[in-house]
Amino acid sequence: MQNVKGTYDFFGKEQTIRRKVETTLRQLFEAYDFDEMNSTTLNELDLLASKYAGGEEILKEMYQLTDQGERKLGLRYDLTIPFAKVIALNPGIEFPYKRYEIGKVFRDGPVKKGRLREFLQCDADVVGIAGPQAEAELMQLAAEAFRRLEIPVIIRWNNRKLLGETLECLGVPTALRSSVMLTLDKLDKIGRDGVLRELAGKELAASVAESIVRLTEAPVETFEDWVKACGAENGDGANEARTLARLLERLGLDSVCRFDPFLARGLSFYTGTVYEIFDASGSFTSSLGGGGRYDNIIGQLVERPDIAYPTVGLSFGMESIMAMLAERETEIPQPKVLIVPIGGDMIAPVLETAALLRAGGIRTAVEPIGRKLKKTLASASVRGIRWVILIGENEAAAGQVQLKDMAEKSEQLLAPAEALKRIRDAD
Amino acid sequence: MQNVKGTYDFFGKEQTIRRKVETTLRQLFEAYDFDEMNSTTLNELDLLASKYAGGEEILKEMYQLTDQGERKLGLRYDLTIPFAKVIALNPGIEFPYKRYEIGKVFRDGPVKKGRLREFLQCDADVVGIAGPQAEAELMQLAAEAFRRLEIPVIIRWNNRKLLGETLECLGVPTALRSSVMLTLDKLDKIGRDGVLRELAGKELAASVAESIVRLTEAPVETFEDWVKACGAENGDGANEARTLARLLERLGLDSVCRFDPFLARGLSFYTGTVYEIFDASGSFTSSLGGGGRYDNIIGQLVERPDIAYPTVGLSFGMESIMAMLAERETEIPQPKVLIVPIGGDMIAPVLETAALLRAGGIRTAVEPIGRKLKKTLASASVRGIRWVILIGENEAAAGQVQLKDMAEKSEQLLAPAEALKRIRDAD
Repeated sequence: MQNVKGTYDFFGKEQTIRRKVETTLRQLFEAYDFDEMNSTTLNELDLLASKYAGGEEILKEMYQLTDQGERKLGLRYDLTIPFAKVIALNPGIEFPYKRYEIGKVFRDGPVKKGRLREFLQCDADVVGIAGPQAEAELMQLAAEAFRRLEIPVIIRWNNRKLLGETLECLGVPTALRSSVMLTLDKLDKIGRDGVLRELAGKELAASVAESIVRLTEAPVETFEDWVKACGAENGDGANEARTLARLLERLGLDSVCRFDPFLARGLSFYTGTVYEIFDASGSFTSSLGGGGRYDNIIGQLVERPDIAYPTVGLSFGMESIMAMLAERETEIPQPKVLIVPIGGDMIAPVLETAALLRAGGIRTAVEPIGRKLKKTLASASVRGIRWVILIGENEAAAGQVQLKDMAEKSEQLLAPAEALKRIRDAD
Repeated sequence: MQNVKGTYDFFGKEQTIRRKVETTLRQLFEAYDFDEMNSTTLNELDLLASKYAGGEEILKEMYQLTDQGERKLGLRYDLTIPFAKVIALNPGIEFPYKRYEIGKVFRDGPVKKGRLREFLQCDADVVGIAGPQAEAELMQLAAEAFRRLEIPVIIRWNNRKLLGETLECLGVPTALRSSVMLTLDKLDKIGRDGVLRELAGKELAASVAESIVRLTEAPVETFEDWVKACGAENGDGANEARTLARLLERLGLDSVCRFDPFLARGLSFYTGTVYEIFDASGSFTSSLGGGGRYDNIIGQLVERPDIAYPTVGLSFGMESIMAMLAERETEIPQPKVLIVPIGGDMIAPVLETAALLRAGGIRTAVEPIGRKLKKTLASASVRGIRWVILIGENEAAAGQVQLKDMAEKSEQLLAPAEALKRIRDAD
């Protein structure tokens, strides 16, 4: 027996960390007034494979299945297409609409370090706002999330329109622009030589390839430096990016956000701002999240060319975040109270007392029968359990319990309800 | 475009209810000192189809798929087999071990009212306790859960061994016992006539069928009445059931728990106690949860006949619970503060103030630009939003905000940090 490759079970310490991250993000989404969504895992194959969906690379990795009625289905490979579907199927939703979703997605890809076949995604999207405030709000949210998770990050950002305009200025033919973008996007991974090699394989004029490479060598201090250097100051993309750059500055986010003129993000569906989040120390190289504006996806799914569905999304790289946090010290939640039966048939009074404390919201464990009291107390002490309740025949007969305060090293004979009060009051 | 039949997207009010139920149960599991588990959705087909798994009926409904490496996989159809797998794969887990899991499962069954193809399950299981305290603890937990959900319930319980002994006393041949059990289990659904018809189809002596039917007509007040009536007072099952009956009585659970001599639960893997939870008013007829003891499943998966894995489980019927609660009034969470830009380019000060409040844990919405102020205030009032913050050019220039208290009908010009303090203090 074994697990399917690229899938993992979580419990104990690992699940404790995962739950903490989820709770942190959930609280933040709520503070930012996002509505929670819970979309379907199973979807019509046609929807998942539609040409506005995740792009060819992802489609190859989609798990497909057929139901008993011979319908072709797929497992969701992201939370974006299901979100677009929900918007399309529910015309009553009022815009702007902000939703978040935390859920599992599935990809049948090659298993290597950090790539899983089923993994948690966590997305926040805003539909109905064309201006840069939607981007800025999501970038604020991302910055605050990583502050709470105590992971210093850099949010690298760019604008896909601007990138197109830049390549136009440099003389890259329209047909080659997407492909050149994807190559430039890999600059950090494959280095300048790698980019040069890839560019050589495309049908670019040598002078164009050279000027591209020269640009990658120019230091980019600010957004304005860049657009000047490549002569793309006044395009639509440049203007959009300029507005966002100024807004980020006014919001005090310029220390966390950094303009990155080569960032494209793989997915072809982005139409404006794109951003990607990285460990600021650089020691963890995988992306910790990212997102961008995709104004066309929903409209094309809805097939309502008369309505605009401007949309921006943010996706947290949950598995990367979990991998970073896995190294940290985390304590598994311990019970606050341990109830120990002393000899005889103490099950009823023990469970009765346990239920009382538990109904009162106090995490309570019951010691299995048969362990030596000394060992039990020593282990409670090691686990940092402050309260131990002993119930033996005398206590049970009197309807009372022995409450040991391990911190104060004191002991008291009490009715169970009084013990509950005492434990509560000590908090 | 449409959803796959039997699958639903949740958001807004429905998801609010689902989240509340999940949170209630999660808090309770923690109070009962259960560890959270998060098992894989994808599993080896062999595991899911093993003969100790969910039984033939479920296997027909399993979604099967093949990955790119031609491996045969299936989607989990419950949380029990994945739990057994985790125990089998992790021999380091110390017993007794108590885990809970809340997650989606998938069944490719006929779609009818209340039957979904992907749905939430919520299970708590205890492995490593052979005695009835494990059952009693889970029944306490179930009773407390429905108390918190404000759903009065009856927990019907029985013991499968006892049921076997009863049928033996009545002269039902060993080979027919399981089949007769399953027929009797349907007593409530198909009535006495239905049971009689089904029994007639089996190769039972007429006298045996008659005595079975006579028993179904005898009123069962207590467990002891029953075992006397069918002459099965002293079997192992009767003794187990007697111990549990007494324990439930001592725990004050006898008002919620009712002995039901015909309850079997469909799954053949139960080996002792079984129980099923119903709406006490009887108006909602689907089961709200259930469980029982299955002492053999894990051991057979582990293939360690030298180790015992006594296990009891409890599964909440999440979709039934959600369906019952869907009728209730539930308020969608509303922001505590609404920030309204007044004219001009107020995005930066508005988002800056919003981030401050949100970092302070206050749910804050930002009004989209362009709505009339009067309408905005009226709608805030209807939604019960107490605090409205107005930011216009003058406020922005002074680094201040107008804080309107809709409850007190007062207004104050303040720095954003002071507004945060004021809102917090008012709580």
